[in-house]
Amino acid sequence: MNDQAIILFAHGARDPDWAGPFEKIKQQLQAARPRTQVALAFQDFMSPTLDEAVAQLAALGAKRAVLVPLFMAQGGHLKQDLPRLVAKIRGQHPQLELQLMPAIGDSPEILQAISDWVLRGLAI
Amino acid sequence: MNDQAIILFAHGARDPDWAGPFEKIKQQLQAARPRTQVALAFQDFMSPTLDEAVAQLAALGAKRAVLVPLFMAQGGHLKQDLPRLVAKIRGQHPQLELQLMPAIGDSPEILQAISDWVLRGLAI
Repeated sequence: MNDQAIILFAHGARDPDWAGPFEKIKQQLQAARPRTQVALAFQDFMSPTLDEAVAQLAALGAKRAVLVPLFMAQGGHLKQDLPRLVAKIRGQHPQLELQLMPAIGDSPEILQAISDWVLRGLAI
Repeated sequence: MNDQAIILFAHGARDPDWAGPFEKIKQQLQAARPRTQVALAFQDFMSPTLDEAVAQLAALGAKRAVLVPLFMAQGGHLKQDLPRLVAKIRGQHPQLELQLMPAIGDSPEILQAISDWVLRGLAI
């Protein structure tokens, strides 16, 4: 393992199956970056929390982490809750450099991939 | 306009900016299918509701509609709430053929697009 980490941060849900797509993204990233720690963390309902995931990565030696909010769009969760959480984590782990990525829906490539998928799925 | 419709169904949020990515997907689909009605609908916080959007499309002559849940994963919203809502809508609009698509995260292509986007965004 190197000293880098990717943290995928998702909303969470009561239904355990809900985490499936996020687990798959985690697996794809881990396969692409085998020496980087890749972790999932959740805002609600599921564990670990972001706090817990960061603490574990830091304990394992991570010095640089990219935090990827797997949310479709920026609303209250990403604009207000997450910056507060990130500020708290930076205070708790001053040795960890934490880079925050935008939301999925801020990526033109992903929006186009979604539109293409809808068009492929149309039976009309 | 033909008698076909695409309904993009999103969670909704209190922050009006949240709808931006979904508006962009709507515009891309409308550009690709200029004679098809493309509508957005929301579960909470934003309007129109799915009921309202379907009623408007049906009033404008839609006979076949594809309902696309723009949710990352299947949890309670898609497994329980949406089938109930769709059953109610089918009862209200028996002349409308309504096809339901899976969640975004059920598409391997979109999961790969998300993983690729994360990898491109890594500064590490």
